[in-house]
Amino acid sequence: MKINIPESDKKRIVIVGGGFAGLKLALKLAHRQEYQVVLLDKNNYHQFQPLFYQVAMAGLEPSSIVFPLRKAFRKDKEVYIRVTEVKAVHLEKKQLETTVGLCNYDYLVLAFGADTNFFGNERVARLAIPMKSVSEALFLRNRILSDFEKALSTTNYEERQGLMDIVVVGGGPTGVEVSGALAEMKRYVFPKDYPELNTDEIDIYLIQGGDQLLNGMSEESSQKSMEFLSQLGVEVRLNTLVTDFDGEFVHMNDGESIRARKVIWAAGITGNKMEGMPESCLTRGNRIKVNRFSQVEGYDDVFAIGDIAYMEEEAYPHGHPQVAQVAIQQAKTLADNFKNLHRGNTLVPFSYKDLGSMATVGRNRAVVDLPKWKFQGAFAWLVWLLVHLFQILGVKNKVFIFLNWVWNYVTYDQSLRLIIRPRVPKSGEVEVES
Amino acid sequence: MKINIPESDKKRIVIVGGGFAGLKLALKLAHRQEYQVVLLDKNNYHQFQPLFYQVAMAGLEPSSIVFPLRKAFRKDKEVYIRVTEVKAVHLEKKQLETTVGLCNYDYLVLAFGADTNFFGNERVARLAIPMKSVSEALFLRNRILSDFEKALSTTNYEERQGLMDIVVVGGGPTGVEVSGALAEMKRYVFPKDYPELNTDEIDIYLIQGGDQLLNGMSEESSQKSMEFLSQLGVEVRLNTLVTDFDGEFVHMNDGESIRARKVIWAAGITGNKMEGMPESCLTRGNRIKVNRFSQVEGYDDVFAIGDIAYMEEEAYPHGHPQVAQVAIQQAKTLADNFKNLHRGNTLVPFSYKDLGSMATVGRNRAVVDLPKWKFQGAFAWLVWLLVHLFQILGVKNKVFIFLNWVWNYVTYDQSLRLIIRPRVPKSGEVEVES
Repeated sequence: MKINIPESDKKRIVIVGGGFAGLKLALKLAHRQEYQVVLLDKNNYHQFQPLFYQVAMAGLEPSSIVFPLRKAFRKDKEVYIRVTEVKAVHLEKKQLETTVGLCNYDYLVLAFGADTNFFGNERVARLAIPMKSVSEALFLRNRILSDFEKALSTTNYEERQGLMDIVVVGGGPTGVEVSGALAEMKRYVFPKDYPELNTDEIDIYLIQGGDQLLNGMSEESSQKSMEFLSQLGVEVRLNTLVTDFDGEFVHMNDGESIRARKVIWAAGITGNKMEGMPESCLTRGNRIKVNRFSQVEGYDDVFAIGDIAYMEEEAYPHGHPQVAQVAIQQAKTLADNFKNLHRGNTLVPFSYKDLGSMATVGRNRAVVDLPKWKFQGAFAWLVWLLVHLFQILGVKNKVFIFLNWVWNYVTYDQSLRLIIRPRVPKSGEVEVES
Repeated sequence: MKINIPESDKKRIVIVGGGFAGLKLALKLAHRQEYQVVLLDKNNYHQFQPLFYQVAMAGLEPSSIVFPLRKAFRKDKEVYIRVTEVKAVHLEKKQLETTVGLCNYDYLVLAFGADTNFFGNERVARLAIPMKSVSEALFLRNRILSDFEKALSTTNYEERQGLMDIVVVGGGPTGVEVSGALAEMKRYVFPKDYPELNTDEIDIYLIQGGDQLLNGMSEESSQKSMEFLSQLGVEVRLNTLVTDFDGEFVHMNDGESIRARKVIWAAGITGNKMEGMPESCLTRGNRIKVNRFSQVEGYDDVFAIGDIAYMEEEAYPHGHPQVAQVAIQQAKTLADNFKNLHRGNTLVPFSYKDLGSMATVGRNRAVVDLPKWKFQGAFAWLVWLLVHLFQILGVKNKVFIFLNWVWNYVTYDQSLRLIIRPRVPKSGEVEVES
């Protein structure tokens, strides 16, 4: 069956994935109206990854940090959005196989990003909690709250510890932000909500394989984030690897184990796979090798951008960091190159401009590395808030996030501590998913 | 195993259910500190039923209309909240059996309300979508949006109709509000989101068994709500009963069928059951018979209030309507009577004071019946908004709901059109529920 999208005399660009890269590209292309644009995503919304941890920590609602794709393209008649999963690509036929039919393309843009890397440990993959989607963040929120409710009815000390302690694996921005936020909840929220529990018993561990946190940021930022975390009472273990997790105990390579039923896994990412992509196109971390025009080797009409793409340039001989800024800049350059293609101009090579990076540990505690200025603390935290507020899509999202932040700041209270799940369909029911 | 709650020299009141009745009672009792109060609910939040339909219609987030129980009782040391399901009551032992242990009581208050009544039709119960919890409302929202996405890829006209048409069963406030809101989405939201679909093809049916809508409200309100719904394009069928629903077709007692995959069931409620309650205590609609002091016949120390209670008084010889106002007033009277019990005073009988009722059909279209004044239209709509805003628990909820309403009013746009589900655990995973 062919996908139900009208033929057009314009050439068709099919974009797989509505993350930072795919969405930015589609918006740029829609604006210029030189192509028919088909945007495929398995969700009907774009997710703002940098704030997932705040959803998990009950500080923001999922709806504040995601944006309906259809709403972004309401005025663009040449953009077709399909909520579907892409099953395979047939490069020789210039065709995608999706759950809603076969989709031909003139140009294909792969922007389907990366997912959590469990480094091949299937048990950990099954039992640890990842943080790569808003659904996973919501799942984590529900887990933390449910386990506290269970702890109330658990008289055995060791068992109760297992329910209350949390191990965060991975000392990148996500790991640092999650463990910092947990420490703040331990201090400000849990004692008020659970006066019956001794919240001093809650231990928060951050396990990092390397010898510093926030690899890729400056020495000052790494140092300062360590300092901030220990101020907040997070137990940071450097040079330590988690070797296994059986649902009750976390085992580490130094022989020690921690009893904890919740392991938050933020230790790395690996590119999503697509059937039909030749093995020869893939490189380390399952990334797709592209040239400076984001073209996949051997296929001039197939492009990859964002986390899934691996591109070398002079300043980045081992590829770019897998961050939002690279994705957005690659999307902009590719949009320009599609314009060049359309007009018969030559393509321009991509070049990454590092605008800096930042991470937040908690209230008044953030670290910011700008190319020419590094600073930490309260002002850095304010900058972090403003930059993220500015980046999020949608005026309403901005307003509601801002209000939530002000509210939480004034009241010291993340108020969304609700264990809500859409009703689980009874067996035999007509299911939503096809 | 005994429930993990300390013994107290105060008498223990156990309240089952944190709805309007149970929450109000617990708040009143907590304030007076004359008893140890144990509040049991299967959720960790109180739900504001009157706005479920706005969650389903993507106008409000679940978090805006629910309130964490723990937050309500933060300052009350004599209140113990347990998120649990009550499996049975042993009246002779004055003991409840819960999923977190056995719970003794000195006084028991049953406030566990009612659930959707499918009138014994199991297939309908399995396939139709109820609206009695915020989780169900969220499920409905996801279903509507998913089906529209599917309709985009459905070329067969009849099949597409099945995905787009919606049948609402039951002409009470919920049915009227849902069908009105759907009609407004059909007019203002869907054409913008789905320019590829012919949204004129969407049909919204409201099926009502009786010969008027909003039974129990005034003649004017019934009439006017009919008028409002037909202005909005809802097809109302009076004197019609749904006899069956097979997931594709809705069958009615006039021999007609409608092709629709979504049936929203708001046709009635039936009291929740609790094992151990003698059959002799139950009456029509599974309600528990109580005297004017809310006492269950034969058990001076067992009370029932709210939707689950059936009490006759002079002005209500067939019991009170199952509405929030009755629940709240019964809770207040019972709280006073617990004070009387504590102080050795005589109990006062309950007497319901009808403050009026209201329902909203859409923007500027509501009906209000006050004891001495009935009015409909834009002013009624404003009154409806203000009354509900006033009633909802929590300052933050009030602020966020108000902002959402203003936003939706100005933009004609319910912006929460997101199909989000917490990550479904993979098989074998440690599950949240015990």
